[in-house]
Amino acid sequence: MTPGPSNPPGLSLGAGVAVVAIDVGGTDTKRAAVGADGTFVPLETLPTPRLGAAEWVVEQAPAWRAEAEALVGRVDALGVVVPGIVDEPAGVAVASHNLGWRDFPLRELLRSRLELPVALGHDVRAAGVAETRLGAAAGERDVAVVVIGTGVAAALVVDGAPLRAGGYAGEIGHLVVADGPACVCGGRGCLEAVASAAAIALRYETRTGRAAAGSRDVLEAMRAGDADAAAVWQDAVEGIATTLRHLSTITGPEVVVLGGGLASAGNELLEPIERALDRRITIQRRPSLRIAALGPRAGLVGAALLARDLDADHGPGAGA
Amino acid sequence: MTPGPSNPPGLSLGAGVAVVAIDVGGTDTKRAAVGADGTFVPLETLPTPRLGAAEWVVEQAPAWRAEAEALVGRVDALGVVVPGIVDEPAGVAVASHNLGWRDFPLRELLRSRLELPVALGHDVRAAGVAETRLGAAAGERDVAVVVIGTGVAAALVVDGAPLRAGGYAGEIGHLVVADGPACVCGGRGCLEAVASAAAIALRYETRTGRAAAGSRDVLEAMRAGDADAAAVWQDAVEGIATTLRHLSTITGPEVVVLGGGLASAGNELLEPIERALDRRITIQRRPSLRIAALGPRAGLVGAALLARDLDADHGPGAGA
Ligand SMILES: [Zn+2]
Ligand SMILES: [Zn+2]
Repeated sequence: MTPGPSNPPGLSLGAGVAVVAIDVGGTDTKRAAVGADGTFVPLETLPTPRLGAAEWVVEQAPAWRAEAEALVGRVDALGVVVPGIVDEPAGVAVASHNLGWRDFPLRELLRSRLELPVALGHDVRAAGVAETRLGAAAGERDVAVVVIGTGVAAALVVDGAPLRAGGYAGEIGHLVVADGPACVCGGRGCLEAVASAAAIALRYETRTGRAAAGSRDVLEAMRAGDADAAAVWQDAVEGIATTLRHLSTITGPEVVVLGGGLASAGNELLEPIERALDRRITIQRRPSLRIAALGPRAGLVGAALLARDLDADHGPGAGA
Repeated sequence: MTPGPSNPPGLSLGAGVAVVAIDVGGTDTKRAAVGADGTFVPLETLPTPRLGAAEWVVEQAPAWRAEAEALVGRVDALGVVVPGIVDEPAGVAVASHNLGWRDFPLRELLRSRLELPVALGHDVRAAGVAETRLGAAAGERDVAVVVIGTGVAAALVVDGAPLRAGGYAGEIGHLVVADGPACVCGGRGCLEAVASAAAIALRYETRTGRAAAGSRDVLEAMRAGDADAAAVWQDAVEGIATTLRHLSTITGPEVVVLGGGLASAGNELLEPIERALDRRITIQRRPSLRIAALGPRAGLVGAALLARDLDADHGPGAGA
């Protein structure tokens, strides 16, 4: 099995126990092995099955563990992160729109199948842990990691602690920020309906009748001088800036990290948001904005860190 | 010295050290003594001086301590809460619009003047501590205590921990919730500009040309069938409901406690907010709404609890 194409040179999590990390996404499932020396080895990304994704993870886990052990030697824990509502203390995948599970005891099923300590986390909160420990917000105490991809959500860290609220914290994709477009949640004008990668492509198609496979097509049209693309992009920027003002007013981040697929636009996303945020901030602490350092691997790195935390919390073999 | 008129029957903080509590407000300064048996004894409320309020507190503190000791015996700590931006770990009153101080080391000055352990807190966050430990949200872990008086702010508790963010968390008075009215912060359409007690009175006066001394006058006009009063009140209700949706999306409270002067309207405030919130909630956890149990004493009770926490953290005499 060859490591995936996105294997970054030199990513290291530092010394610790060897672990397997899994990031179950709405479309793909990413996997990695992390060695005792901290080396992060991506494994092949697999399509997530439309039906029975949670059961599939449990069934495949022994093979994935073997695959990781062939690369980094014996692993001592597994970390898995999933989207939706996740009850981390209970180890339960509570609900996911896209993946269709409800109250699935994923941690316990993996633990008994593998006889290995298992950590279950939320994909975006895990990405937040990774960016705060090893990425763009390393060493900061008041952080919002805003992940904009197919959906939009944030990992919030306040006073150094990640916010959970039973899995309900950080669902910023459903903040109302615009007059308008219908959202999957049943509301109107949600951030996700104007600024997710999917929404940007859809709004461009609706406006122009021209096809856009994703937000990257809209960005390229904007670069080529397309005024409709620029308008759709600016709507997304304004929605994100309004969201950052809400976050600044409520949780007061000192640093905001922009991640997810949309953040690959880099300064073409960051600079207009900086300007739109400057127009909005009054008494709030103005956060410094940064592009995520770990890119699409952030959730996977977070899963590995959660697995290693098990060991730090309880000593080797805990929870098995 | 006679206890103030608002002395509530039977409020007890439980057994602990005896303390003095001070709540420095924009208009009045409230004070109380708390005995070792937990009895809460309000002292006379004093007008806060327009100039030099922080220095005044330091100068008066020895007399206030003596006054408390005449009632409850020797006190072992003092707790003081103030509005604005407060850096609790540093013990510094960073900034207050109304009271005009900046970076005032209030805790250290009181400590050296009194030779007593001193806790400095934020008025609204302290009220949140009080409502979460002894009041309407006792035993809850994910709480927003929304205080609506002259200004509007919230104490946010997530996963059982109060959020600070360097003093910037919970400044919900400056969430944009309406098209419109100018706010003291320089923005437009802030919650404080449509739903604070002062804003409700002002908006009624502007709309009708009739005088209103406060939000209570508007409430009474509404009861008498005044359609303008009802419209102004409903604008406040909608602004508060939009704010609660923002809070639910970002920090996911299970319980929202409504406090401050406006909450004395009880069900006339609560019921329309319940309906307006039901129209807005989609995927968010729908919080249960409650009226504050401790009323205008919540900040003072919080100050006493912070002072007692000093003793619990460090043993008797710590910090002196
Ligand atoms: Zn939505
Ligand atoms: Zn404002």
